[in-house]
Amino acid sequence: MQRILNIETIKYSGKKAKVCGWVNSRRDHGGIVFLDLRDRSGILQVVSSPDLVKDIKEEYILEIEGEVKKRPIKMANSELETGQIELNAQKIKILAKTRSLPFDLKELKLSLPKLLDYRPLTLRNEKIKAIFQIEEEVISSFRKAIKNLGFNEFQAPTIVPGATEGGAEVFHIDYFDKDAYLAQSPQLYKQIMVGVFERVFTITHAYRAEPSVDTRHLTEYISLDAEMGFINSWTDLMDTCEIVIRNMFSGIEKNCQKELKMFGKILPKLSKKIPRLKMRQAQEIIFQRRGRDNRKKPDLEPEDEKEICQFSKEKYNSELIFITHYLTKKRPFYTFADPEDPEYTLSFDLLCRGLEIVTGGQRINEYEKLVKNIKKWGNKTKDFDLYLHAIKYGMPPEGGFSIGSERIIKQLLELGNVR
Amino acid sequence: MQRILNIETIKYSGKKAKVCGWVNSRRDHGGIVFLDLRDRSGILQVVSSPDLVKDIKEEYILEIEGEVKKRPIKMANSELETGQIELNAQKIKILAKTRSLPFDLKELKLSLPKLLDYRPLTLRNEKIKAIFQIEEEVISSFRKAIKNLGFNEFQAPTIVPGATEGGAEVFHIDYFDKDAYLAQSPQLYKQIMVGVFERVFTITHAYRAEPSVDTRHLTEYISLDAEMGFINSWTDLMDTCEIVIRNMFSGIEKNCQKELKMFGKILPKLSKKIPRLKMRQAQEIIFQRRGRDNRKKPDLEPEDEKEICQFSKEKYNSELIFITHYLTKKRPFYTFADPEDPEYTLSFDLLCRGLEIVTGGQRINEYEKLVKNIKKWGNKTKDFDLYLHAIKYGMPPEGGFSIGSERIIKQLLELGNVR
Repeated sequence: MQRILNIETIKYSGKKAKVCGWVNSRRDHGGIVFLDLRDRSGILQVVSSPDLVKDIKEEYILEIEGEVKKRPIKMANSELETGQIELNAQKIKILAKTRSLPFDLKELKLSLPKLLDYRPLTLRNEKIKAIFQIEEEVISSFRKAIKNLGFNEFQAPTIVPGATEGGAEVFHIDYFDKDAYLAQSPQLYKQIMVGVFERVFTITHAYRAEPSVDTRHLTEYISLDAEMGFINSWTDLMDTCEIVIRNMFSGIEKNCQKELKMFGKILPKLSKKIPRLKMRQAQEIIFQRRGRDNRKKPDLEPEDEKEICQFSKEKYNSELIFITHYLTKKRPFYTFADPEDPEYTLSFDLLCRGLEIVTGGQRINEYEKLVKNIKKWGNKTKDFDLYLHAIKYGMPPEGGFSIGSERIIKQLLELGNVR
Repeated sequence: MQRILNIETIKYSGKKAKVCGWVNSRRDHGGIVFLDLRDRSGILQVVSSPDLVKDIKEEYILEIEGEVKKRPIKMANSELETGQIELNAQKIKILAKTRSLPFDLKELKLSLPKLLDYRPLTLRNEKIKAIFQIEEEVISSFRKAIKNLGFNEFQAPTIVPGATEGGAEVFHIDYFDKDAYLAQSPQLYKQIMVGVFERVFTITHAYRAEPSVDTRHLTEYISLDAEMGFINSWTDLMDTCEIVIRNMFSGIEKNCQKELKMFGKILPKLSKKIPRLKMRQAQEIIFQRRGRDNRKKPDLEPEDEKEICQFSKEKYNSELIFITHYLTKKRPFYTFADPEDPEYTLSFDLLCRGLEIVTGGQRINEYEKLVKNIKKWGNKTKDFDLYLHAIKYGMPPEGGFSIGSERIIKQLLELGNVR
């Protein structure tokens, strides 16, 4: 007999079926034993005589043959997708024995270090699985949305030869007799690829050697990166980003209802157009609302980001807001300065429920200007040879943005920690 | 006026249009200048008076407004998709100036080191772009095929804490006060994920610190990895692999006709079922065909792989062949030994036109057996804590395979070198 999935048993009422899975729970009621069998499709109740399941413990892996029966109406369980039926076990084979679990997988009240130490197990918890499913939906809806806009996917290298673009710490690798580093972002490579395909995106690993224990940073994360040439204005970038984010939210809404419900969460409110504010305007608004005077500060602080999102929600009914025109000296060397006020850049962050989830902007596409900036930022041009080739030999006006997938999930589910 | 793509101009005959792109070539014919303008959609012929294009050189980036006209029939160029029309330039704006190219981008007769040094430029060559497009099709058709079989995508970490699974060299990273390495493969993680989702796949970067200059190895490559639980037999793995490979070939056939044609290549011949031979049988056949006696050798050598593919093509009309039952001592510690002859494993390679493009097999899913093997292979079990948790707490009979995307492309296009 061919194995079927638990979810398929609902079409087998009155018939024989073979299923496989893990024993999610075992309940002994006198002359009868109930097993909840878990497979990738869900949970199925199995009814067995005690002798058939004598040695069987939770998390054992079984192959069970039996007959699918309708449950009496008052015994039906509407919380399970298979709740209207159960399987009367006739033959049980142990596929793998399992040690006693070191903790309760269903409750999972563990500290973060323990959660991470036991990741292979904790991932089997239904809520953690749900986070995982949402992450995959975030990634695949990004891919779908950006492809629809004519962007070509490419695979960015993660071992990079020299310096990287920003100030954050990098991981060093012994690369034969040379030095190499793990890419902090695919930034320079996506710009190079604009010279080839005009519109490109990559879904890649990025690395930050920050041994921090805060709740916002990861040492290895998935970056959803897009870059586009032939922009008419840097605002094209925000427009494109907005389309992508809307599509991602629709994808999650459509395909992750069950998962969102498990967390009791709804998606952030989006107004018809996401509001856009300059950083200095945001600081002014915060000063007026709270009296906190950060108007001379070079960047928004974490509490400012929360405050301005609160303002956006109240004033525009949008839990997302673009903050633009960050200070030139606080942004990487390739960021395009505003010709009308070069102290500020044509750059933006997209904040969601108090946290930056996207960062982007226009890039310098003039070779001489870029070389000047590389030096001004304290870097050596020879470390950027490959990148500079792309600019030197013809780069259209361009820019892009980068979405942190883990951060989106944290903000959607309002989780305490990005890990 | 909104910019349109070159390919869209064919619908604008007799109308005004604005296009953008790189000057692919410039030809001066007395009182008239022809520019081939290249954008992501293709090439468009632009006709201009000399004064409009006075300072314009190849690879400059332009925005051109003009009128789209039908070309006289005898001047039409059937090789270009836009070959029936041309654009009469009325206004030209230089979006970016470009230095003179260090070599001819259309011919591209360069040594490999130079090709790699100038990658941002050489990628703009039409043939190299085509390789790139085929690679993306390989990846996306793999994703589509394997998803259809009920596999869940996951993102494998690339920084791993301790030892990795095989004998090949690994890259070391300074990970704060600990040691860490770049993953040689997502092997252990995909097995862990079988404990969560049963059927999983990942498309990830893998790293081999092999400073070799041969034509088959890369230090960073894209691995297409699948793993499935609840197999009835290890041959399920080859069956699944075969379905995926067929779908990938169909995807390339369907979406990359133009690219294959540029290389004058057709896809490898596939018989109705890919033939399967044990390694020892293959060595015997080679001995009988060529008199080369490698029958006691522990593995197939490169010329053996070529020879057995030749045999498969002649005998079975298939340029792909599965070789099975490799020696236990030559495979990683987790490989499942054949219960009928434990000297050999339930493993396979898929060869294509003389090169291994897939490797796979059943894995040990019994905790005690695995711990014994880890020690026997000279490793420390504490380096495998995370992995062993997954096995200890319940792993069904399982196995999987790994496809090297770059190698597939090399074999499809019969390129000299995998780089």
